[in-house]
Amino acid sequence: MRELLDAVADGTLSPEQAEAELNGYVTGEAGRFDAARQSRRGIPEAILAEGKSAAQVVALAETALETTDRALLTRVSDDQIDALRTALADSAPDATIERRGTTVRVVGSDFDQPTLEATVGIVTAGTVDKPVADEAEIVCADAGATIDRVDDVGVAALARTLDQVERFRDADVLIVAAGREGALPTVIAGLVDTPVIAVPVSSGYGHGGDGEAALAGLLQSCTVLSVVNIDAGFVAGAQATLISRAIHGAQDY
Amino acid sequence: MRELLDAVADGTLSPEQAEAELNGYVTGEAGRFDAARQSRRGIPEAILAEGKSAAQVVALAETALETTDRALLTRVSDDQIDALRTALADSAPDATIERRGTTVRVVGSDFDQPTLEATVGIVTAGTVDKPVADEAEIVCADAGATIDRVDDVGVAALARTLDQVERFRDADVLIVAAGREGALPTVIAGLVDTPVIAVPVSSGYGHGGDGEAALAGLLQSCTVLSVVNIDAGFVAGAQATLISRAIHGAQDY
Amino acid sequence: MRELLDAVADGTLSPEQAEAELNGYVTGEAGRFDAARQSRRGIPEAILAEGKSAAQVVALAETALETTDRALLTRVSDDQIDALRTALADSAPDATIERRGTTVRVVGSDFDQPTLEATVGIVTAGTVDKPVADEAEIVCADAGATIDRVDDVGVAALARTLDQVERFRDADVLIVAAGREGALPTVIAGLVDTPVIAVPVSSGYGHGGDGEAALAGLLQSCTVLSVVNIDAGFVAGAQATLISRAIHGAQDY
Amino acid sequence: MRELLDAVADGTLSPEQAEAELNGYVTGEAGRFDAARQSRRGIPEAILAEGKSAAQVVALAETALETTDRALLTRVSDDQIDALRTALADSAPDATIERRGTTVRVVGSDFDQPTLEATVGIVTAGTVDKPVADEAEIVCADAGATIDRVDDVGVAALARTLDQVERFRDADVLIVAAGREGALPTVIAGLVDTPVIAVPVSSGYGHGGDGEAALAGLLQSCTVLSVVNIDAGFVAGAQATLISRAIHGAQDY
Amino acid sequence: MRELLDAVADGTLSPEQAEAELNGYVTGEAGRFDAARQSRRGIPEAILAEGKSAAQVVALAETALETTDRALLTRVSDDQIDALRTALADSAPDATIERRGTTVRVVGSDFDQPTLEATVGIVTAGTVDKPVADEAEIVCADAGATIDRVDDVGVAALARTLDQVERFRDADVLIVAAGREGALPTVIAGLVDTPVIAVPVSSGYGHGGDGEAALAGLLQSCTVLSVVNIDAGFVAGAQATLISRAIHGAQDY
Amino acid sequence: MRELLDAVADGTLSPEQAEAELNGYVTGEAGRFDAARQSRRGIPEAILAEGKSAAQVVALAETALETTDRALLTRVSDDQIDALRTALADSAPDATIERRGTTVRVVGSDFDQPTLEATVGIVTAGTVDKPVADEAEIVCADAGATIDRVDDVGVAALARTLDQVERFRDADVLIVAAGREGALPTVIAGLVDTPVIAVPVSSGYGHGGDGEAALAGLLQSCTVLSVVNIDAGFVAGAQATLISRAIHGAQDY
Amino acid sequence: MRELLDAVADGTLSPEQAEAELNGYVTGEAGRFDAARQSRRGIPEAILAEGKSAAQVVALAETALETTDRALLTRVSDDQIDALRTALADSAPDATIERRGTTVRVVGSDFDQPTLEATVGIVTAGTVDKPVADEAEIVCADAGATIDRVDDVGVAALARTLDQVERFRDADVLIVAAGREGALPTVIAGLVDTPVIAVPVSSGYGHGGDGEAALAGLLQSCTVLSVVNIDAGFVAGAQATLISRAIHGAQDY
Amino acid sequence: MRELLDAVADGTLSPEQAEAELNGYVTGEAGRFDAARQSRRGIPEAILAEGKSAAQVVALAETALETTDRALLTRVSDDQIDALRTALADSAPDATIERRGTTVRVVGSDFDQPTLEATVGIVTAGTVDKPVADEAEIVCADAGATIDRVDDVGVAALARTLDQVERFRDADVLIVAAGREGALPTVIAGLVDTPVIAVPVSSGYGHGGDGEAALAGLLQSCTVLSVVNIDAGFVAGAQATLISRAIHGAQDY
Repeated sequence: MRELLDAVADGTLSPEQAEAELNGYVTGEAGRFDAARQSRRGIPEAILAEGKSAAQVVALAETALETTDRALLTRVSDDQIDALRTALADSAPDATIERRGTTVRVVGSDFDQPTLEATVGIVTAGTVDKPVADEAEIVCADAGATIDRVDDVGVAALARTLDQVERFRDADVLIVAAGREGALPTVIAGLVDTPVIAVPVSSGYGHGGDGEAALAGLLQSCTVLSVVNIDAGFVAGAQATLISRAIHGAQDY
Repeated sequence: MRELLDAVADGTLSPEQAEAELNGYVTGEAGRFDAARQSRRGIPEAILAEGKSAAQVVALAETALETTDRALLTRVSDDQIDALRTALADSAPDATIERRGTTVRVVGSDFDQPTLEATVGIVTAGTVDKPVADEAEIVCADAGATIDRVDDVGVAALARTLDQVERFRDADVLIVAAGREGALPTVIAGLVDTPVIAVPVSSGYGHGGDGEAALAGLLQSCTVLSVVNIDAGFVAGAQATLISRAIHGAQDY
Repeated sequence: MRELLDAVADGTLSPEQAEAELNGYVTGEAGRFDAARQSRRGIPEAILAEGKSAAQVVALAETALETTDRALLTRVSDDQIDALRTALADSAPDATIERRGTTVRVVGSDFDQPTLEATVGIVTAGTVDKPVADEAEIVCADAGATIDRVDDVGVAALARTLDQVERFRDADVLIVAAGREGALPTVIAGLVDTPVIAVPVSSGYGHGGDGEAALAGLLQSCTVLSVVNIDAGFVAGAQATLISRAIHGAQDY
Repeated sequence: MRELLDAVADGTLSPEQAEAELNGYVTGEAGRFDAARQSRRGIPEAILAEGKSAAQVVALAETALETTDRALLTRVSDDQIDALRTALADSAPDATIERRGTTVRVVGSDFDQPTLEATVGIVTAGTVDKPVADEAEIVCADAGATIDRVDDVGVAALARTLDQVERFRDADVLIVAAGREGALPTVIAGLVDTPVIAVPVSSGYGHGGDGEAALAGLLQSCTVLSVVNIDAGFVAGAQATLISRAIHGAQDY
Repeated sequence: MRELLDAVADGTLSPEQAEAELNGYVTGEAGRFDAARQSRRGIPEAILAEGKSAAQVVALAETALETTDRALLTRVSDDQIDALRTALADSAPDATIERRGTTVRVVGSDFDQPTLEATVGIVTAGTVDKPVADEAEIVCADAGATIDRVDDVGVAALARTLDQVERFRDADVLIVAAGREGALPTVIAGLVDTPVIAVPVSSGYGHGGDGEAALAGLLQSCTVLSVVNIDAGFVAGAQATLISRAIHGAQDY
Repeated sequence: MRELLDAVADGTLSPEQAEAELNGYVTGEAGRFDAARQSRRGIPEAILAEGKSAAQVVALAETALETTDRALLTRVSDDQIDALRTALADSAPDATIERRGTTVRVVGSDFDQPTLEATVGIVTAGTVDKPVADEAEIVCADAGATIDRVDDVGVAALARTLDQVERFRDADVLIVAAGREGALPTVIAGLVDTPVIAVPVSSGYGHGGDGEAALAGLLQSCTVLSVVNIDAGFVAGAQATLISRAIHGAQDY
Repeated sequence: MRELLDAVADGTLSPEQAEAELNGYVTGEAGRFDAARQSRRGIPEAILAEGKSAAQVVALAETALETTDRALLTRVSDDQIDALRTALADSAPDATIERRGTTVRVVGSDFDQPTLEATVGIVTAGTVDKPVADEAEIVCADAGATIDRVDDVGVAALARTLDQVERFRDADVLIVAAGREGALPTVIAGLVDTPVIAVPVSSGYGHGGDGEAALAGLLQSCTVLSVVNIDAGFVAGAQATLISRAIHGAQDY
Repeated sequence: MRELLDAVADGTLSPEQAEAELNGYVTGEAGRFDAARQSRRGIPEAILAEGKSAAQVVALAETALETTDRALLTRVSDDQIDALRTALADSAPDATIERRGTTVRVVGSDFDQPTLEATVGIVTAGTVDKPVADEAEIVCADAGATIDRVDDVGVAALARTLDQVERFRDADVLIVAAGREGALPTVIAGLVDTPVIAVPVSSGYGHGGDGEAALAGLLQSCTVLSVVNIDAGFVAGAQATLISRAIHGAQDY
């Protein structure tokens, strides 16, 4: 405790970092940020931007950057990204902003990229599944895992799927994203002994659209797999990271 | 008209058959039976036993037998079958009673079995799908079609499915029954140019159980197929019969 | 194999066409296109534009055009069509762009229109069902079928329906699109021995709106018909094409 | 008030009847019975037996009989009917018990049957709809209306329906009961200017079963009609009675 | 027939009116209009504008005006109304356009307003229910009924409701529109012997919003009433008109 | 701590009571019982018997009796009650077993009945709501509250409701149970300033049955009230107890 | 009565206030306003702006201000607030407009702020829950209660929750708002004996989004709490006010 | 191949084992059994007994025993178990039958128990979750994993949960089963870096019962976890096995 306070006193630790160290969370203007999540849980807290104001998103991202040297944001709108760029130009000019679709990762100049000796296979059935897979990919890459991305192998043309089975087998863990009827994760899981995390995707119209048919089908799957919510790429990526860390050990954050 | 009345007068036509000829339906004690359906529609009316009393089922079956020389009944309970056997022992001692699971076909001694130069492929994913496939099989066989039955080729063990692709290709039309996530009809339809009629089956528990996941997935299928209701084996069989008759022409009933 | 490579070498076959020939699919920048679908399945792959970026739609359409001499696109937005027109003016200036509502067909100058000796009856209950019927019509016409289109014969004015029964009987296969309560396919299927494919349409407001009442009613239909998903005109048209090809034989693609 | 109390005093009015007269309801051991409903509303309170113990059903029926000279009960189980017969043999030996399916009407010897110069058409699509129509019929007949019952005219054999249009036109008000896809009320309402009350029936299995497809379809009907809940024959009959009373005037209860 | 053709020949009847007379419907560019509906059904066809293009709405309105001297349109958008005004300024400059919310009635100069000796009570629970009640009011007024409109008497302040009971009793038929929990029609129907048609309204947010709670509650109502779909003011008004015509006789259209 | 252990040693405290005192819960053969709940939460843990074996129910009840001198059980089947009576005859012969419908309270001879100076009004709409109200009543009475029970005042006969308004006003807190459309809690809450806890009841059939219409309507209520789940009489009673204790103070358990 | 009329005559009472006094409600151009609600129910009527036109919102707010010296409005859009500001600048220039998110309170210069000796704890799980908590806070503060607001203590970082337990215990009543899986109210209610009113919040995407998972989970909670509808902050606040007034007595409005 | 045939010839391999070796599946009288699943997938096929006849269950179990030296069966009824015991007494008298609730494992005398250096933590919230956890436990134990079972630590008494956090941290992978609101997996996953597989359990009544609230809440969880279907203990156990094998390597079957 004394050490911490000394560090604050001599400026090597900000008050926010000290609070995070002591309480496990930091209280900023946009709420309490769970800065201790990455050490406690092995994965950082991601900021779900949807439903928040641009100002709240910026404040949370700055707190994350301040205390954990990076920020992960999902489902970010164009307005929110613009506000973030503007704010960070001031508050963290050295930070790098990586964007894929609606997923954003801000990396501070002090960030110490961990390494993780694992390969996460990330597979999509079709073009519309890619943004969800991107969300998963960013969180796995943040943890240092190697990504083997296989796109567009839906079962309507089964040859596309079967051509890639060896890659599915070689991964430590597989994330398979599919919309419509969501058959791809079931077909893949039936062929390999790699654990499969399935992500239903909100494509398709009519009955069972918005990913509900895919979700229900994956829960009913005649093979063994586990599931995350519709479009929940971040959760799939984080769960794959936890499993990868369990497999290969993990450098502590 | 005069001919019909003469035939009634000299006993070669029963009043019921004459009414059926004139009106298209017969009015019996358990309701109006659509005796003209097989000539008008190409497929006979089936009696859905579920929700009817045993007495109603018997009366309808006897009317069907009287006017069309046979009766098709679906979702028949043990009590209803017993009542039917007892009643027919009296009223139609020469009739043959065929039963598969809950589907029953009563064939009168005068029935003139049509022939239909078509092969209907009937496929199931697993053991629990068989009674639904049986319902389809009985109606196709009643029309004289050849049945190629392929059981238990669900996608959890894809080798089982792929081993049968040639048989799927050789059929004129395919009926594919599957419960749980219902992926099998999608996988098969992606491999062949035979028209596929998919039947979701009410197996499975939890979310999407009772066939709802399979139905939604089939409606969302990324391949081309058409669908009937959950467990609706009779409808699938009758639709396959209509298509088969369109392909190969059909002896008029 | 050697033949294929020679053809690539002397420029009579593009590398994409060669890949399609060998693998059954082509890998372009917007994903893997199932170029072999029309020979394997008897119907071409359609590009569902909804949920894709304009750039992805253009890339997929160009791949389809390159490998199969035409492209079918459904649920295309105005922005996507504009992007497509602009891109094709460059890449395929001889191609023809046909548009009906949100359905688009791009036909290359080398396209060899197949013929199919079949009449597909396409029927709508009301004005709002027409775009869905258009989607079906384009895919049947692409396969060379004759279309008999009968619009606006919903059961609220039953005389409109009954006046057209002979046309319904004369078709090889019928596609019937209806929203609201969706009674029209049931009424028509009760009158004819033509196979009926019913398409529920997402009209109507309140409980059972968005086509759900029509879908449920068609699945529960007291007559025999099969069903595709709400608004799934393409699937209905493609299934009608498969049945027509089974009836009348089909020129190979 | 004094008159009432005098009548109680001299025994021409029971205390229960006096309470009913004064408060509008009677408090018995099984709850407060709304004895004034028939004078206030024009239709008597019916006792929904489902979910009540046999003792409660008996007590409520006896209170109804005591204060309004008859009792209407719906969805009565065999056990409840047996308990009722036993109890009434003691408490009201002169009462007549009429039963149709699960609907029961107990008529006291003092009951003064009203007359109502109206014809209520009650129509069913098929055999399984009859018990629901019976429930409606009993309440209309209780009010003295003439019933024109037309059974088994579902749209699968449209000739059956069209043969009866004149009878549908001649009724003052129509109750049409139909399960499965529930198309019959829509078809009939499109042909006549009689007000139609539609009753969805809980027949059918699979998606939209238990009457939900029929209900949704009737709410979405492209014609004009109003709806009661699934299997709610009593409500349909009572609403038809109110309309009939409005049309032809009504003898006060 | 000859008479009709003579009338067409000498110009006293347009071809559209003659077609309507003969077939019961008119075939225009936007579909078949059921011009005979008002004579056959006692109520005119209304044009549901939602889901149609402005051009289709205009064409249908012009056909209605041509053949029945007026047009009723529901759920009309501002764009559609503007298009209608522009078109009618040319094609029917003498027509009057009445608008209430999203409901529009166009009356031609030759329209012969019928009279109907009935009072329809139209009641709302709150401010948001008014547009739905307006839709009902326009169709009843079109038929010549007297309207007694009572707004804003929801049960949260029961005194407001009870103050109006006499007016509810004096109507021939009541239309009661209510959103949220939809208790008002139940409370009113419990107090009077006037037939009540309940209209659930799509107000409210959260679980049971969009009118679903009100609809379910009205179908479950412990009193007697019948129901139309959520927001279906036109259907309620038309059904009230049919009942009013049955009560008081009706001048033929 | 030492005190506790001494008490165990000299037998004035059982090991179970000591464990409960120390940990807040007791580990028995049927699971961990939350013996500290009544001191921590102000209300005891109730044992939901549904879904447990008779042996499990007995073991949990005995643990509850052992550590808190009584046991509350809800949704108990006849078999479970029989097993309980048999077991307690041995293990706790002095205990009293109170039963109302499916709710059971076992009171040990050492139980020190608390008093609570509050009146909880418990109101039902009809006969079928009574068992749910009983469940609430038992838990409030267990805490020592005075109960004012008002049965059978549903809004179909509004006079029954209005006659009791003064009693509703005089309660400290009201529990109102209603099935079907669930209008009663809304009507009562609109008339009084007593806090109302509404309990939807699983009566009614058809759409919105099983209490879903009542639940949705109560959540959408145009007045102010809070809600517990369908049939959750225990939760309503316990919440009313917590509020009563907050109002009148409470003797510590 | 005479007094009231005299007061109107000499101008000390407006006609609106007199009507409110006599009838319990005021009839303005936008409907009947329940001015007596605060005296009858202990809480004022709030105006739900959603679904109303700006003109209707202004008219209702002015009536509220006129008769109760303030107006509470929920779910107000920017356009509606602008219209309100403009109108009040004229009609009530001394009034103060308080806004938090979409909740607005207008306080007239004559408003006599009541005091209420109660502390309402208002707790949120995360940032997106705050606007719902704000709605609750405004209505409690309007009644004069002290608010203890605790934000951002969701269970994903349980230390944040446990750090605040003493504050939860010290409140008279707790309002806990949570979206996603809605676990926070359950966890808090398990730790304290304060009555908890849970508010599910419409955050989250995919299955169970829009607050439905949180609502269902709260209704199923294994602890004791009561629930209001999704996002219904006003109802939670008003219910907490009623309970607070019951606990601490309340100055009459 | 020749080797296999020799082995069959000299009797060291049964024809079934040879077929399994060659095709990956065995065709018996009750269907094709996926004997190769354990080598291909790392987990054996389990036989879902629900929905199958006793004869089918027996035949499948015997095939499993014949080809993989043991059989796993889930959701087995008492009748099915009796039939199995009877049959195995004949066909495999040396086999051991292990039963926990409705899960059964039959182990042949030749079974070579694998070992797996992993600890799977299996946690339940309450008594009713135990049978689902048992199903998971049997499949993990079958693979040789060590099980750390922690029962009855639901969040209603949070101390029970927090007391076990170290055990949760020490497992390689956690399976957490919870019904009702399903908060336990969320709370645990927020505290540890062990991957959590959550199993919603079908306890609870009313809205969100049958496990639907728990499932939705787990999909919406604000922490990171993956989910299997309601009551799908087998799937959770098999997924945990796959992860454990990935972590610790695995002896090949």
